[in-house]
Amino acid sequence: MRTFTQISALRTYLRGLRLEGKEIGFVPTMGALHEGHLSLVQRAARDCDLVVLSIYVNPRQFGPNEDFEAYPRDLQRDLQMASSAGVDAVLIPTNEEMYPNGYQTVVQLPELGSLLDGTHRPGHFDGVATVVCKLLNIVQPDRAFFGQKDYQQLRVIEQMVLDLNLPCKIVMAPTVRAEDGLALSSRNSYLNDKERLAATVIHRSLCAVVELTVRGEKRPKVLEECMREILETEPLLKLQYATIATPETLQPAPEEGLERMVALVAAHVGRTRLIDNEVLVAETRFKDLS
Amino acid sequence: MRTFTQISALRTYLRGLRLEGKEIGFVPTMGALHEGHLSLVQRAARDCDLVVLSIYVNPRQFGPNEDFEAYPRDLQRDLQMASSAGVDAVLIPTNEEMYPNGYQTVVQLPELGSLLDGTHRPGHFDGVATVVCKLLNIVQPDRAFFGQKDYQQLRVIEQMVLDLNLPCKIVMAPTVRAEDGLALSSRNSYLNDKERLAATVIHRSLCAVVELTVRGEKRPKVLEECMREILETEPLLKLQYATIATPETLQPAPEEGLERMVALVAAHVGRTRLIDNEVLVAETRFKDLS
Repeated sequence: MRTFTQISALRTYLRGLRLEGKEIGFVPTMGALHEGHLSLVQRAARDCDLVVLSIYVNPRQFGPNEDFEAYPRDLQRDLQMASSAGVDAVLIPTNEEMYPNGYQTVVQLPELGSLLDGTHRPGHFDGVATVVCKLLNIVQPDRAFFGQKDYQQLRVIEQMVLDLNLPCKIVMAPTVRAEDGLALSSRNSYLNDKERLAATVIHRSLCAVVELTVRGEKRPKVLEECMREILETEPLLKLQYATIATPETLQPAPEEGLERMVALVAAHVGRTRLIDNEVLVAETRFKDLS
Repeated sequence: MRTFTQISALRTYLRGLRLEGKEIGFVPTMGALHEGHLSLVQRAARDCDLVVLSIYVNPRQFGPNEDFEAYPRDLQRDLQMASSAGVDAVLIPTNEEMYPNGYQTVVQLPELGSLLDGTHRPGHFDGVATVVCKLLNIVQPDRAFFGQKDYQQLRVIEQMVLDLNLPCKIVMAPTVRAEDGLALSSRNSYLNDKERLAATVIHRSLCAVVELTVRGEKRPKVLEECMREILETEPLLKLQYATIATPETLQPAPEEGLERMVALVAAHVGRTRLIDNEVLVAETRFKDLS
């Protein structure tokens, strides 16, 4: 596995491989790798000839009171995991390389970026869209891989790629979960034992609405009420939102519901902010059984 | 010469040529082609194997009270001129292709985009940066060519390309002028005979400060005063700004001046808004003479 800290060196390396006709897969990360990231690498290795992974804790997607400083960093462990998982090249850029003096450009998605997490983390998705735009231009991958866990981030990136005509396909891979259902996240390491147990309520609330949808319930009000009731049983959890949304726009789903919706939850457990989601597809399981 | 209205068709055409190793030069325009555009095409043809020209009057860079509707359009004439000048492929996208339903992404340069023309045309450079970002991703040229006449636009684009790591070189070509010095612009066609004559004062004011700089004057206050005095002799002209700026940031040049500065003018002549500029290099002409 090759590691690069200089953008220009990675570019030179990739130029040759691209001319040989190699398809490049790209997995952007903030490091603190876990099985979720590795599943993206495996998917990339299956779909492409070459897997590039980036490790960069992007300061511009953290708010002033957020956990930029505390965010877990363990480069040696990350590099070992990446290498074992089949990554061909790792980019670990410095802040000076990414945002040199005079840097000013912002990529903004005023609609998708201002809803849900955008309300609770102002500017977050500007930071995400901007850094992903940069990384996609640096790596110029054929495909880039993102986890469903960060569903809004995925939609922001899909829309940006479409809007700006970036020549790259965005692939969504399923959320990887612990045995008790908690979505894997680098931030789970912040949780103490009690909080870790409490956090499982998030996925239980999502499973409950999946179940309700399977039984034919499509009204967002009913589904949201169901999530909230379950989430409120957990005293360590402080809910930010539990919403049933239109999957493409992330606007609240219409009163009567849709065939396809997404249930999204954000909550603090202790001081740790967690998010999760499930796509709800009306009655598909019945169809599967027939 | 090939013409494309569909982005995907142009992409398919270019993909093959790129794989053959052809260097692609790109000249984005809003049509109403003149000698200024043709000089960019000639430069592109000299530097690259293949010249792509786009013709697109981008609604998002016009303000609500600006001349989007009135902007001159003559596609047949443009295509003939492009073909004669050696363009290989023309992209003429529709608004629906460029900004389909659900489109929302904005590329913003908060510093360079808010000064000078940005003050007088709020949102203009968001529109420019966004459409050029899109076009560069569509064409994926090795080099893209812009005229010095739109100096602030050029700086916005250069900075965006640098900031977003777009794999493209931006080339600035000199302003092409009429014999009496007026910078060529598609908007010159709005001018009646009296206004056309009055408009020449803009370049005369720029020549005066070039002359002063050559003689060693570097103080922005003195240079700006000189421009203003000349411009105010013309009753048909309504000045927006006559500024001496730092060439990279376009911030006002410091009191004592710099070795390299840029003089920028924007003014209405009748109802037509005109801009022009000259780069001022202290004492170079003396050096040339020595």
